[in-house]
Amino acid sequence: MSTTTLAGATQDEMRKRNLGSLLRHLHVNGACSRSELTALTGLNRSTVGALTAELEEAGLVRSEQPIGHGVGRPSIMVAPAGERAYVLAVDVGVEHASVALIGLGGSVLARRELQHVPGETPRKLIQRARRVVDSLVATAADGSVCIGIGVSVPGVVRHSDGLVHIAPNLGWIEVPLGSIIATVLRTNLPIAIANDADLAAIAEHARGAARGLSHVVMISGDVGVGGGIIIDGRLMTGAGGYGGEIGHMVINPSGGRSCRCGSVGCWETTIGEQAVREALGVLTESEVRASLLEATRGDPRLAEVGRWLGLGVANLVNICNPQAVVFGGMFGDLYRVVDEAVAQQLGNSLAAPLEGLVLRSAALGPDSVSMGAAERAFLSLLDDPLGHLARCRELSAA
Amino acid sequence: MSTTTLAGATQDEMRKRNLGSLLRHLHVNGACSRSELTALTGLNRSTVGALTAELEEAGLVRSEQPIGHGVGRPSIMVAPAGERAYVLAVDVGVEHASVALIGLGGSVLARRELQHVPGETPRKLIQRARRVVDSLVATAADGSVCIGIGVSVPGVVRHSDGLVHIAPNLGWIEVPLGSIIATVLRTNLPIAIANDADLAAIAEHARGAARGLSHVVMISGDVGVGGGIIIDGRLMTGAGGYGGEIGHMVINPSGGRSCRCGSVGCWETTIGEQAVREALGVLTESEVRASLLEATRGDPRLAEVGRWLGLGVANLVNICNPQAVVFGGMFGDLYRVVDEAVAQQLGNSLAAPLEGLVLRSAALGPDSVSMGAAERAFLSLLDDPLGHLARCRELSAA
Repeated sequence: MSTTTLAGATQDEMRKRNLGSLLRHLHVNGACSRSELTALTGLNRSTVGALTAELEEAGLVRSEQPIGHGVGRPSIMVAPAGERAYVLAVDVGVEHASVALIGLGGSVLARRELQHVPGETPRKLIQRARRVVDSLVATAADGSVCIGIGVSVPGVVRHSDGLVHIAPNLGWIEVPLGSIIATVLRTNLPIAIANDADLAAIAEHARGAARGLSHVVMISGDVGVGGGIIIDGRLMTGAGGYGGEIGHMVINPSGGRSCRCGSVGCWETTIGEQAVREALGVLTESEVRASLLEATRGDPRLAEVGRWLGLGVANLVNICNPQAVVFGGMFGDLYRVVDEAVAQQLGNSLAAPLEGLVLRSAALGPDSVSMGAAERAFLSLLDDPLGHLARCRELSAA
Repeated sequence: MSTTTLAGATQDEMRKRNLGSLLRHLHVNGACSRSELTALTGLNRSTVGALTAELEEAGLVRSEQPIGHGVGRPSIMVAPAGERAYVLAVDVGVEHASVALIGLGGSVLARRELQHVPGETPRKLIQRARRVVDSLVATAADGSVCIGIGVSVPGVVRHSDGLVHIAPNLGWIEVPLGSIIATVLRTNLPIAIANDADLAAIAEHARGAARGLSHVVMISGDVGVGGGIIIDGRLMTGAGGYGGEIGHMVINPSGGRSCRCGSVGCWETTIGEQAVREALGVLTESEVRASLLEATRGDPRLAEVGRWLGLGVANLVNICNPQAVVFGGMFGDLYRVVDEAVAQQLGNSLAAPLEGLVLRSAALGPDSVSMGAAERAFLSLLDDPLGHLARCRELSAA
């Protein structure tokens, strides 16, 4: 219950909301007949017709004659116009960065990778990225519009202005990434910068292993352990955007290891890549991935890691009562090996939150972070399609 | 982002939403002038006038001539009609139970306590409560309507049907409380049954220490340790209603104590009443409360409990990134003694989620649970005032 906001619903807001609902559906589920949209919205035929006409005039959707040969007059199909409205998705990863144009509907229109240059400042990286962005945008269709920029960083990010407090694996501290991107790309477009684990959770929720669910905990990462928590269908960002720092849940303070965060016994020290590497007796990240793929279910070398993974999952299940726990990154492979140990620990936790709970590995690959950055950037368009589009056209022209 | 629901906003839904917004504002903040409501909603004067007239006709609000002597024509005041629409709030506590009629706007219209009878079944308790309910309802104003029943239980409750899986301090296991109440009270009215810690959080959020905030973690309880987590202004219930079981977050699995839940090293074993009793060297709950009130800040007997309290709070802050952590029940008194130890542990956790964080004791007393049960029961009315009222009138007549 929000006790302070009291927004009056006006005619204009209602229209905005209906346009947003239609466009969101097409964005997530793809082409759909007008009669399906009528059934789904509860709006009448003519209203759906008028709304889709507005979206089509704005260039956000496209109507197509159906090919069907069924009985009766076939309903017109409506599809998202992915090549007309797109976002720029930037994934600053630990190994490399990537830049992609992702169209409405989720199609990847163009994509390029950038290798990191040792010692490079964030500004230099974005300056290199700018040349890539320019070359990608040059390939975009005539009359198409960029409606926002989504950026993923493996670090702690303030949502309000995209300040990266710390990204340990990039060596970044207090980097004002939002303003660097705006300056270097010379853009006034909205820029949404978020933590990679949060964005992976958004992507798995929109198009992956957690599709259609409302309450999800996603555990991802490799060196670090990140989390993304979906509550009532939306990412739990918390007050500043820092929600989901599950890797620094202290779980073994008595005799546990020091964490790079300065605390002792964080979950990350028990299940992170270093712990897995030591358990397997291997040296590099790629050896970890290979060993996990080779390991058989119940591999005794990973019993202890599995126990800690289960303990932490049980904590999150008791706190959040999700429908699903999704394991991404290295944890997708790890979970396949230690699923029994995890189940055993869950069996020791409260019974009720286990009702109907499913645990599964992520469905999307490493690109999920980039997809999540795109989904995050699409949010404003889906909340107010025509208004946001008009604002972006103005900003691009300015 | 909800990917599956696609509700079309109709004229009727818009009106419902506006009526709900107005009534919610009056319910939480009390009497308000029509011009304030106009300013707050962004709706025009005549729309606000028409909506308040509808609410007044339904008996949910009352217009009052203002007494002011200011310049210009004074705006008509609108107040919630607390005596005309009320809920029944039942708090099944560990020590005793209480039954209250709570009016729209939050005023307690009538209230009675029932002592527990040792060995009494849940059905017998509700049968005794029924006589109290009947006597309270007999005092309600003519033409007033009960619009729902809210029930608090110190246990694990399934929201969908009010099944109490377990309420250890009542000795209840798998009690179908929702259907018992419906049968014994012979009512078809909506019954919302929830965990006491969740309801205390709802109350502190609506009318107490977390008023006006959107992201809150509340820690409450005595024997057990309960939690209520508010995300984006709403209680985080989780998939089944079991969210917020923070007392069973395992925090000391290596050498920690067995918990009554069957697990080892739950947070509850380190900060619950038993741990505090042992630290203080006292025997009973009332001695604990008295000792905590007498204890000076930084009392060394409580240093260890304070450290564990801080460790768990730091975990919750890293996971949820709240604006405030509120300490209720015994923890309100405990926090005043160990606040420095808690701050020290928080200082070891990630820095970013501490931005702007406040920690404070609860503002409401033990009645907060009953108030939270009432707020929970009012939700349906505030989502759809006229529709819900009409349904309740029908159900009461049936």
